[in-house]
Amino acid sequence: MKLAVLRERRDAEKRVAASPETVKKLIGLGFEVIIEAGAGEGASIPDKQFEEAGASIAKDLKAAVKDADVIFSVQGLEAADAKHVKKGAAQLAVLNPFVERDRLDAYAKAGLMAFAMEFVPRITRAQSMDVLSSQSNLAGYKAVLDGAAEFGRAFPMMMTAAGTVPPARVMVMGAGVAGLQAIATAKRLGAIVSATDVRPAAKEQVESLGGKFVMVEDEETAAAETAGGYAKEMSDEYKAKQAALIAETLAKQDMAITTALIPGRPAPKLITEEMVKSMKPGSVIVDLAVEMGGNCELSKPGEVVEAHGVKIVGHRNVPSRLAADASALYARNLVHFITPMVKEGELAFDFEDEIIRESLVTKDGAVVNERLKGEK
Amino acid sequence: MKLAVLRERRDAEKRVAASPETVKKLIGLGFEVIIEAGAGEGASIPDKQFEEAGASIAKDLKAAVKDADVIFSVQGLEAADAKHVKKGAAQLAVLNPFVERDRLDAYAKAGLMAFAMEFVPRITRAQSMDVLSSQSNLAGYKAVLDGAAEFGRAFPMMMTAAGTVPPARVMVMGAGVAGLQAIATAKRLGAIVSATDVRPAAKEQVESLGGKFVMVEDEETAAAETAGGYAKEMSDEYKAKQAALIAETLAKQDMAITTALIPGRPAPKLITEEMVKSMKPGSVIVDLAVEMGGNCELSKPGEVVEAHGVKIVGHRNVPSRLAADASALYARNLVHFITPMVKEGELAFDFEDEIIRESLVTKDGAVVNERLKGEK
Repeated sequence: MKLAVLRERRDAEKRVAASPETVKKLIGLGFEVIIEAGAGEGASIPDKQFEEAGASIAKDLKAAVKDADVIFSVQGLEAADAKHVKKGAAQLAVLNPFVERDRLDAYAKAGLMAFAMEFVPRITRAQSMDVLSSQSNLAGYKAVLDGAAEFGRAFPMMMTAAGTVPPARVMVMGAGVAGLQAIATAKRLGAIVSATDVRPAAKEQVESLGGKFVMVEDEETAAAETAGGYAKEMSDEYKAKQAALIAETLAKQDMAITTALIPGRPAPKLITEEMVKSMKPGSVIVDLAVEMGGNCELSKPGEVVEAHGVKIVGHRNVPSRLAADASALYARNLVHFITPMVKEGELAFDFEDEIIRESLVTKDGAVVNERLKGEK
Repeated sequence: MKLAVLRERRDAEKRVAASPETVKKLIGLGFEVIIEAGAGEGASIPDKQFEEAGASIAKDLKAAVKDADVIFSVQGLEAADAKHVKKGAAQLAVLNPFVERDRLDAYAKAGLMAFAMEFVPRITRAQSMDVLSSQSNLAGYKAVLDGAAEFGRAFPMMMTAAGTVPPARVMVMGAGVAGLQAIATAKRLGAIVSATDVRPAAKEQVESLGGKFVMVEDEETAAAETAGGYAKEMSDEYKAKQAALIAETLAKQDMAITTALIPGRPAPKLITEEMVKSMKPGSVIVDLAVEMGGNCELSKPGEVVEAHGVKIVGHRNVPSRLAADASALYARNLVHFITPMVKEGELAFDFEDEIIRESLVTKDGAVVNERLKGEK
């Protein structure tokens, strides 16, 4: 069994889908591992380290995927490269299936068996394969540091000979995996942290991290958590009440970190221009949802904009900004995913299995996933 | 009594020598406070806030200093602007006297009474006026965040479903005010921290912050602390032993933060190119001494360079990167300095006072400071 790991080609993508540690594990499973030259560069893993772990280096993508049975990458093969791959080969990557349908069609045409890692179901057995969680966790950490980098003040209270520096006030909006790690990180740095979420269940988690939970509580919130663990979309009336509470709280903050996403839909607008105006000069907003349209009306993907004296940070691909750890965890997610599919040194996919069924997007020349039916 | 606060003119200087809080205090002392328009912009203090605190806004430097008895700034008047100032007026600023002698001569010629805030003696009574401490403290905090910004991994240990992320290892070289705050900040963020210093007294301070103290201990170190609280320069033999120990420790670190300064001398070279080579790919060095020649052989002022897979961060003027807090504390330092010189609403300088004597650099048309005798 041959397994190829690709060098990423997209802008600002510094991650890689393997680490020396996972190369060893893959070899232990019976794979011959081929790394495309330079794949680990952005994550500070020289080719030499991959070789020392037992991989061989291929000079380019074509050479890497030749005869490969399994292909690992972060962002997935580009449509034009699908033709280089052996028919029936498995591809594991984050494929952005709702948005990049053309690519799926190219994979289908090339006879690829493509797995979209973001479709892995959020069930207990699949936790160790959950790339959304592993990457969001790091994004939540990095969001705080990205905010701190733009902030003209320190986070902790400091008692100095010249007088006391008050602690920063940070509000985290959306207390999912990223939000909870943002809360933990801001607390570590010494900030006073509050958080909002539409799921009442988040209250306990926020409080266990030392954050203050700020939310409108009514009968609607009691039923707001969907089976997948995401927030579902709320009524207009609820949104108005929540927006009023956020506006009031926000005006007292030094920093807001927004993490609210709704799968397959634009991100909810939580911070309007009016609310930005209400913030103190020098405040910072970090919008982790910027690539899905943004939680703040004024955020721009890939930019740090200043509006009404407030800096609004809209870095793209935040996990890639922590490329070494993000790669290490992503690589482990893929190993956890592929391990049950290897039986006595041979690949054996159980297409009845829930994890495979939900993540498989192309097979036998067609786009096959339930969630993609009715799309384009 | 009129007191003018200048807008800073030097590159990348975002601080300001007053805050709304200190403006109120200065007015309480009997000053009429004039702020040069836009002075607080870099520190997120709009002119309006200064006006609300009771200051008036002057459209430019000439208008601001007209008839002023006291002039506050961070980096000091440029030589060419000294002529606009009333003879006998007092200027409080960081004047870099050893390097910028021309400026002092211009002040003397204009009849200015210039105080170099960095010359305020490190005595108990003057702690609240100590700009080196207040700014170094913030620089130490920011150094950790600047390092974290370039680092591809997270600081804390994280236990995730995909496996554990190990904590970062950070070594702080030089455990003065900046070094101690760097240790505290790296610890807060979850790193394993070690530190070195040539002063044995630093051991206890490092350990009280949870850091591990790494130093060569011999008879020479027993006598290494000067009266001023700075490290004095050590023998070549000691330096060789220390360098060997640092080299050995450094090779195991993810990050080094260097803060070693010797007043009026180039910074000691603590990290050679060989030592950089020994570090792991993806490691980060933050050189807080870069403007004094650098503690690392490869650091460049104002740049983040990559060498041998290691990023070397050489930001200039690190306190200014935290402009709001740095301004707030610097402004308080100046108020603490000027307060004892106001007697019943009049300026009255006691030239016998140790603090005044040591910080005064020009008076009555001449450069007067003891420490500057023999210079140029």
